[in-house]
Parts: sequence; structure tokens; C-alpha cells
Amino acid sequence: MFKVKIYTIGRLKDAWLAEALHEYEKRLQGRAEIEWILCKSDPELFEKISKEPHWIALDPKGELLDSPSLSLKLLQKSRLTFLIGGSDGIPQPLLAKSAWRWSLSPLTFTHQMTRLILLEQLYRAFEIDSGSSYHK
Amino acid sequence: MFKVKIYTIGRLKDAWLAEALHEYEKRLQGRAEIEWILCKSDPELFEKISKEPHWIALDPKGELLDSPSLSLKLLQKSRLTFLIGGSDGIPQPLLAKSAWRWSLSPLTFTHQMTRLILLEQLYRAFEIDSGSSYHK
Repeated sequence: MFKVKIYTIGRLKDAWLAEALHEYEKRLQGRAEIEWILCKSDPELFEKISKEPHWIALDPKGELLDSPSLSLKLLQKSRLTFLIGGSDGIPQPLLAKSAWRWSLSPLTFTHQMTRLILLEQLYRAFEIDSGSSYHK
Repeated sequence: MFKVKIYTIGRLKDAWLAEALHEYEKRLQGRAEIEWILCKSDPELFEKISKEPHWIALDPKGELLDSPSLSLKLLQKSRLTFLIGGSDGIPQPLLAKSAWRWSLSPLTFTHQMTRLILLEQLYRAFEIDSGSSYHK
């Protein structure tokens, strides 16, 4: 069972997003356990993440990968910790300390959408690994 | 008023997606009119798009842009037509005839998410253009 922690700012205004995240968490059941660490502020977020031994920073200027390469990369580890920064991004020292800087896209996405894309890509990573028809 | 047409395959299974798309269409009101051309099959989709004078193909192998560059590029025209291919992608002849091949990301997204990201980026394009604080 994979242990996935996602650190982010805890605003969740939209009902549709809660529903969509729930859908992907359900699909991930039995393969990955998702723990959300929803912080109230940037300082809280950055203080908490600093206590982790390593984390992947979601950073628009990070490395771009296609989904099969991402699957290979992510599923090497059974513990994954992700950091989604607040609206001012991730401070340079925390970027520098991150195990990997991953870019979903050079486009800017909302935090909401970033959460959803992250979960869907995790689900897709497992499906690619299992050779299912979800990813083709 | 911008006229935006989006050609895609018409499966819309998820209630959360309908709600999310509705939210962004509402936000775009007064600035862009969104027309969805939901086709039942790849052949129908490709026959219909072929009658358009020009269109932008959403293609994971297309050009990657950041959101400000995208805003500049999209808002030059007041009519925009987008093609989101089915699960087998867009056939080469239609890719070759497209006005522009745009990649949201090298990652593979679901059609559902592609629709949502497209609308959010359109909304973001207008917000960037108006200098609002939505994009910072």
C-alpha cells in the first residue's frame, strides 16, 4: 500500500472539487492511502513540510514528464509526499530542498485543479503500471 | 464578445464536471459565448471539424505555453474553435490542417479534465488581459 501525503493550503470552496477528489480517492483505495495536510497559511504550510524528510514540489518551472515516465518515477517509492504551494508559490529555500520539482504544465492552474490533476495522475500512474486500458 | 466553439466527444458522465464547467461558463458570461459541439463518435467529430475554416487542436505533442503567453495568443482573435480528440487522439491529417497544435501538458489528461482546464485557461486569459488579481 502506497502512503501519499499532500501538503497544501486548505481552502476548498467548491462542492464539485470535493466530489471529484472523493471519486479519485475511492478509485485509489487499496493501492494508495491519501492523507491531506491542509494548512491555513503559507507559514504553517512551509513549517510543516520542513519536518518531512523529503517531498516533491509542484512547481510550474519544474520538470515536465509524460504520464508513462511519471508512473515509472513515482512508483519507485512507496511513500510519496507532495507540496502544492499557496498562491504566492513555494519559497526558494523549500524548492531547493525538495527531492524533485515537478511541473504539471507551464500553464498556471488553480490550487483546486492542481489537487485534482495530481490525484488523477496518481490514479493513472497505477493504471499504467498495471497495464489497464485506462491509459492508452 | 468572443465566440468560442469546442468540438469534442460528448460523454459527460460526471456530475462534478458538469457543475465545474457551468461555473466557468458563468464566469465567462459577457466576455465569451461558449458553444459545445458534442459528437457521438470520432468520425462524426472529424467530419464536423473539417467544415470549420480553422481550429486549434489540443494535442499533448503540441506547443507548450505559459498562461500569459496563451492569453496574448488567444485574445488576438474573436472567434476561437478548439478540437479535443477522442481517446485515440486526433488523426494526423486533421492535426496537419489545424491552425495551431496546443499542448496543455505532456501529461495525458482525461477528456473531462481537458474540457475543464480549457475553460479555466480561457477564463484566466481574460483575467490576465484585464490585469485582475485572479492570475498572479
